[in-house]
Amino acid sequence: MPTAFLKHPFMSQHAIDACNDDAMVRAMLAFELALAEVQEASGAVPSGASQQMREQLEGANFNVAEIAQGIASGGNVAIPFVKQSRGLLPSELKRYWHQGATSQDVVDSALMLLLKPRLAALDDLLLRCRSAATALMDVHIDTPMVGRTLMQQALPITFGVKVAHWAVGLEQTRRRLSAVELPVQFGGAVGVHSGWDNLGLEWMDALAERLGLSVPVLPWHTDRYPIHALGTALDAVAGAAEKIALDVSLLTQTEVGEVAEPSAPGMGESSSMPHKRNPVRSALIRGAARQVHGHTSVLICAAAQPLERGLGEWHAEWAPLIESALLVEGALEQVVVLLEGLEVNPSNMWRNLAATGGGIMAEPVARLLAPTLGVDRAKAVSADAAETSRRESRAYFDVLTEVLAKDPDAKGAVDADELRNACDPALYLGSSTAQVTRAKKWLEAQ
Amino acid sequence: MPTAFLKHPFMSQHAIDACNDDAMVRAMLAFELALAEVQEASGAVPSGASQQMREQLEGANFNVAEIAQGIASGGNVAIPFVKQSRGLLPSELKRYWHQGATSQDVVDSALMLLLKPRLAALDDLLLRCRSAATALMDVHIDTPMVGRTLMQQALPITFGVKVAHWAVGLEQTRRRLSAVELPVQFGGAVGVHSGWDNLGLEWMDALAERLGLSVPVLPWHTDRYPIHALGTALDAVAGAAEKIALDVSLLTQTEVGEVAEPSAPGMGESSSMPHKRNPVRSALIRGAARQVHGHTSVLICAAAQPLERGLGEWHAEWAPLIESALLVEGALEQVVVLLEGLEVNPSNMWRNLAATGGGIMAEPVARLLAPTLGVDRAKAVSADAAETSRRESRAYFDVLTEVLAKDPDAKGAVDADELRNACDPALYLGSSTAQVTRAKKWLEAQ
Amino acid sequence: MPTAFLKHPFMSQHAIDACNDDAMVRAMLAFELALAEVQEASGAVPSGASQQMREQLEGANFNVAEIAQGIASGGNVAIPFVKQSRGLLPSELKRYWHQGATSQDVVDSALMLLLKPRLAALDDLLLRCRSAATALMDVHIDTPMVGRTLMQQALPITFGVKVAHWAVGLEQTRRRLSAVELPVQFGGAVGVHSGWDNLGLEWMDALAERLGLSVPVLPWHTDRYPIHALGTALDAVAGAAEKIALDVSLLTQTEVGEVAEPSAPGMGESSSMPHKRNPVRSALIRGAARQVHGHTSVLICAAAQPLERGLGEWHAEWAPLIESALLVEGALEQVVVLLEGLEVNPSNMWRNLAATGGGIMAEPVARLLAPTLGVDRAKAVSADAAETSRRESRAYFDVLTEVLAKDPDAKGAVDADELRNACDPALYLGSSTAQVTRAKKWLEAQ
Amino acid sequence: MPTAFLKHPFMSQHAIDACNDDAMVRAMLAFELALAEVQEASGAVPSGASQQMREQLEGANFNVAEIAQGIASGGNVAIPFVKQSRGLLPSELKRYWHQGATSQDVVDSALMLLLKPRLAALDDLLLRCRSAATALMDVHIDTPMVGRTLMQQALPITFGVKVAHWAVGLEQTRRRLSAVELPVQFGGAVGVHSGWDNLGLEWMDALAERLGLSVPVLPWHTDRYPIHALGTALDAVAGAAEKIALDVSLLTQTEVGEVAEPSAPGMGESSSMPHKRNPVRSALIRGAARQVHGHTSVLICAAAQPLERGLGEWHAEWAPLIESALLVEGALEQVVVLLEGLEVNPSNMWRNLAATGGGIMAEPVARLLAPTLGVDRAKAVSADAAETSRRESRAYFDVLTEVLAKDPDAKGAVDADELRNACDPALYLGSSTAQVTRAKKWLEAQ
Repeated sequence: MPTAFLKHPFMSQHAIDACNDDAMVRAMLAFELALAEVQEASGAVPSGASQQMREQLEGANFNVAEIAQGIASGGNVAIPFVKQSRGLLPSELKRYWHQGATSQDVVDSALMLLLKPRLAALDDLLLRCRSAATALMDVHIDTPMVGRTLMQQALPITFGVKVAHWAVGLEQTRRRLSAVELPVQFGGAVGVHSGWDNLGLEWMDALAERLGLSVPVLPWHTDRYPIHALGTALDAVAGAAEKIALDVSLLTQTEVGEVAEPSAPGMGESSSMPHKRNPVRSALIRGAARQVHGHTSVLICAAAQPLERGLGEWHAEWAPLIESALLVEGALEQVVVLLEGLEVNPSNMWRNLAATGGGIMAEPVARLLAPTLGVDRAKAVSADAAETSRRESRAYFDVLTEVLAKDPDAKGAVDADELRNACDPALYLGSSTAQVTRAKKWLEAQ
Repeated sequence: MPTAFLKHPFMSQHAIDACNDDAMVRAMLAFELALAEVQEASGAVPSGASQQMREQLEGANFNVAEIAQGIASGGNVAIPFVKQSRGLLPSELKRYWHQGATSQDVVDSALMLLLKPRLAALDDLLLRCRSAATALMDVHIDTPMVGRTLMQQALPITFGVKVAHWAVGLEQTRRRLSAVELPVQFGGAVGVHSGWDNLGLEWMDALAERLGLSVPVLPWHTDRYPIHALGTALDAVAGAAEKIALDVSLLTQTEVGEVAEPSAPGMGESSSMPHKRNPVRSALIRGAARQVHGHTSVLICAAAQPLERGLGEWHAEWAPLIESALLVEGALEQVVVLLEGLEVNPSNMWRNLAATGGGIMAEPVARLLAPTLGVDRAKAVSADAAETSRRESRAYFDVLTEVLAKDPDAKGAVDADELRNACDPALYLGSSTAQVTRAKKWLEAQ
Repeated sequence: MPTAFLKHPFMSQHAIDACNDDAMVRAMLAFELALAEVQEASGAVPSGASQQMREQLEGANFNVAEIAQGIASGGNVAIPFVKQSRGLLPSELKRYWHQGATSQDVVDSALMLLLKPRLAALDDLLLRCRSAATALMDVHIDTPMVGRTLMQQALPITFGVKVAHWAVGLEQTRRRLSAVELPVQFGGAVGVHSGWDNLGLEWMDALAERLGLSVPVLPWHTDRYPIHALGTALDAVAGAAEKIALDVSLLTQTEVGEVAEPSAPGMGESSSMPHKRNPVRSALIRGAARQVHGHTSVLICAAAQPLERGLGEWHAEWAPLIESALLVEGALEQVVVLLEGLEVNPSNMWRNLAATGGGIMAEPVARLLAPTLGVDRAKAVSADAAETSRRESRAYFDVLTEVLAKDPDAKGAVDADELRNACDPALYLGSSTAQVTRAKKWLEAQ
Repeated sequence: MPTAFLKHPFMSQHAIDACNDDAMVRAMLAFELALAEVQEASGAVPSGASQQMREQLEGANFNVAEIAQGIASGGNVAIPFVKQSRGLLPSELKRYWHQGATSQDVVDSALMLLLKPRLAALDDLLLRCRSAATALMDVHIDTPMVGRTLMQQALPITFGVKVAHWAVGLEQTRRRLSAVELPVQFGGAVGVHSGWDNLGLEWMDALAERLGLSVPVLPWHTDRYPIHALGTALDAVAGAAEKIALDVSLLTQTEVGEVAEPSAPGMGESSSMPHKRNPVRSALIRGAARQVHGHTSVLICAAAQPLERGLGEWHAEWAPLIESALLVEGALEQVVVLLEGLEVNPSNMWRNLAATGGGIMAEPVARLLAPTLGVDRAKAVSADAAETSRRESRAYFDVLTEVLAKDPDAKGAVDADELRNACDPALYLGSSTAQVTRAKKWLEAQ
């Protein structure tokens, strides 16, 4: 295999193992055995045959290398798998194996079976993120920090509300993902259960139930909506994770220092620079998300497949689909660690709130002065003072006091306490707290 | 503007007009007026002011060129729009204009307002497609044709079931699209309603109601899930349309000739070749869908935006989002025409079913012969006869009859009528009819 | 690892092996050893030390699993590799190991080292394609077939000229790829050879020479042009391969039957349908190309990386880059087989030329008749006859003869031989032969 | 048209005008007139006819709206254009108009003609960027600043070398772009000059010369390498511009403050926050680049087109290609302004170098102490002191002096001046200067 060094670090090791060759063989086997059982129930397979098949094959050692080698000639893994598994059956059962099915039935259904526990794992991880985020929201509901737009300091927010936005972002994608259906595939050679007439749809429905998959309206060999829905839902999760990693990367910059990734022995160390602590988890999340977007672009471009079976379009979906799921799971594992262990530095948040001498409060100050000075002069005075405090590295409040003392209109007309309050970021947090409360209520609702 | 010749043919002209500069101005105006009304209701704007604003501005002639020119310096259209519209107000009202709002509130909300009627139009078009498809399904429920996998002839299906697959594909995306929410945007400078505390969320909710948009959980300046959900839903529709265009393109090939795009004067004519009729509608649909996929890749890559406002990521969403909607609408207009007027040629379908001399029926023939000849010989005999009938351009049934007459085991053991039936594509249509019935039931359910 | 069943079929097995974990370790080792040698030559490493390192490490058994496990904490494979390899050195040499280098120097250079033989292999494959295509061009320089636009029959071409277009398409990408530079990476922690001043650039140049890589202008830690150039060049090859696979897929359709993929035991067989021969190689090529396009979109979106080292952008490049190369090599291996063994069926090409009764010749016929009938009537007569011949399945020439015999203006005025010639596709091949000749000359020129 | 507010701000207004409907009409006209001239020269058009055509059409008022309306039925703009322009000719010339050409010949060639001056404009802009960057490199060749990896402070570099990396990045893409060929398209209906035999290639070559376009090897109707090469070259420019915008965005953050976008009246102002100066130009560049990447993904996915003419794939290229060029030009216009007017703040660079108390110099300090303390203790001592200086906000040199004074091994063994030098970022700039010199030489070389 191509070196795993370059891809596995972005993935969940546990999930990789759960999606290996053996797991794929087991998933295909599960499909074929369930099919035999369903067909036996309707009399299309002799009584007892499916049980015999299960006994014969469930413990069998499949020759994975042989299957791998057989793929190229037929173009998909179902062909050599069916051949090898049929070979392990007593001859009287051979003809009932894979009966009425086509390769795509096996591969699509097996992929859905592999993905089902992965989606469950993603849901678990997203719930852990939600809990961790909720805890951060509680702790930091009143922690003021600078809000930044276009990466420039703008006005105060709280760290709690920032986390609330992250949490809502993630939770929306969790709900979207949990609504995605993983349908069974079963249509036979050309999608119409040739030779089995109306039994086909009955079997399809029964298969879905037996395998714990969704029932599709019809076989979906070249109706790839389920793949589109799944791939884009995974991509949405990746995007929500990426947003958090981006914010953490920015807030943990040396000059900002408001948060830090949880420290762990060796984590983020540089081989040459002893003072460095790299935001490695954020880098891994961002690296994963970008690869997911690439895979998603393959999936959405494969939505239109010709006639009754794709000619390359279908084949191109396999790896991007599985890898998207593995990358998203890897990214979420990192997000969980980030959210559960994020180091938050409120004093640096205060320091940064004061970095412009306080001039980010020019807007509330202007509002305070407006009744006295008129809107336009109020704006000019507050902005000039902000500029002075920045240039001279003096406290905004001090500069303002000085300026207003000299101003014939303002002198005595502006209350010092009110002015001090208008300069206090902690008193200008808008709906931050209310948003946290609202977010918590919504997060808990489902 | 860059030449419209290269893009407008893929779009709906009606929709283009509904999303022009003037419409964008009207949408931004609707947002600001609704905001003033909502604020007036809570006392933050003097009584009667919002009505005055409406009177002043609703009939005003905005200087679109001036707005356009003002965009570059602030980086978005809201800034010059607010400036120009404020300039049109009496001075006592100026300060209440755009109060508590930020540029992104205006632009995001205006985009949602522009898109709302577009989504309604898409829904209408998809419903027309559904009706047209249902009619085709009814007419062709028993029309046999060749099913093709990897673009090779495989086994018979019906044209009815093919259309059912198209219809289900489209309808799934209609349902997905109709569940997409278009939320209002309102958060103020850093998304926390600075200076307005808890009024902010109240206003956000009231604005949504007044504008007919969804209520978001929180302001979503850098939580781009709504855009991701919308963009990928539009992309899904594009994919379903593209699938139909791809099938039509293949089935209308000169050598296949099973369907044709509806003829119209001049449509698909070649300037030099009198005998040609190009599938122009399919080309336009496919051209549109590919452009949508490109736009979608921009949108999904913009899911992660820094801190409280994007720095380019947000800006990159605007055109791809609007153009995706316009391209999808253009594509669906063509799909409606295709489905409502598709020329179906059952006799060519029959001709193609017979193209291999009938050898595509080798599988049911093998099943018929199996009890007599054993599975393996049955397969070999049927396959050899298929090969012979293809090579010698003779009817499969005739070849088989001849072969079986000489076969000591088969002679007299195979009933001629049964054999003839096994060779008849029209008797080997599997669940085609049942699928059409099931699809219709599902389509009608919502 | 995630199941290889879904990805390896699209790749070259030989190439996969050449890019495995062990190969990556060897490539990183080659970089570090070359660095020590270069530094020894300038006195920065004690004399003889590099030789000692080589002896110590070249035959060493690296613990790949340990390296793999160590990646997550530092975020890239160089960190655990350097640690492990340093641990194998005698202590007096440890400090000279990885001296002046940073992780990205190791990883980027190692990737270039892995890719160098892959690009050579791609060049070989493309040259084989060129030879095979040239042979096909020679054999079929006079083989007429239908040219098809928008997948409709248009006018005659030759199979030779079609192959010439394929060959030029491939060769352009070969030349582009062969011009791509694989530069060494060496800049140290922040890309300026901290602590080594002007030695840094000297070493960079010497390293490039020693490793057989290109000399970059400057270190390129966050100047990703080399990756962009390489990734898009690989993508171009994928596109040229995909074009051939698309044409083969279309020409091998059952109803067209003009070419067939080379037959091989088991290749393209269907498990259920004895008469089928699937264009599996084309499906694999198309599947590979689509995945390459997805990888390319990741690479081009990673072109902008922050400051002196990416934070996820760099990490996201690794797998897409290597996998693109492996997928392109896999695709080209299939193209070689296709071109070397393509089954061409000139008689079906003739059959298809006649499929419309010959009406595709309406244009040359109109030109012949114009002097006699005037342009407009000539066009109308030829087009009407084409329509009649199609509708009545009669030869175009016969219909024309009949029509012209009854036409008072044409009667006697049109020479039967000239008319027969105008109806002969083999006499209306335009520059087909000249294009083949020109293409061959160009192909041979380099 | 869809509102220009959302797209034009990213583009060059001048370039938009140069690519409008009228320009497209002129480009198509130029192609057809040149064709007539070329054909007249070889006797296929009557002597004087081409001159007559030119006189008739060059000053004609084309009805753009009528052309626009005629596109949908034929599927491309050439068809209604040819019809309308032919209608303006005297009847004896009509038959020579568009002789031997097909729609794609007209459209592809016209696009190349529109793009030729755009590529020249891009080259000019890139040369201006190069000059501006060279000037910055000269001024700041010795300006120390922090180098940052994974967005964390790492070790010193100079601002000069940072600009050198930008300049090399841009210049590589300039050279790539300047090597891209814009070939004429001319192949007739199916790409083989049907009816004109060997004249076809002669005309193609002559057309290229007359129009100032490149000579292709063969007609390239479905060999889209030229589009792939052009689109990816434009994308590379976008990426290099995006890199600069990303760095500027990061360096202009309030907390970093090392550079600022050139100030201009109203530029970057916020409507509500007087203290803000948004990096609007960077936002526009990044917004443009992201849209270019989306367009590029459309172009690379269109590389494979069926048989002799695309069925949607070709159509999908038009808008993305033109818009990519316009977006790149818009982005470069902003980059020119940025580089020519960038405000650089060396004192903030010094401040940030000292932000960790100087601890970023721990590595050179460790190297200085190693001979005295041994490698391991030297590293530990320097790292501990860095940590102390950061924690206590004291100068790294002071902390070190204190620590070493108490250390029995170090006491008296370390020269104070050497230690001071080791702590001085301005003395640890590695190859920064040498890289600037090397870059300048390379930039000037072409």
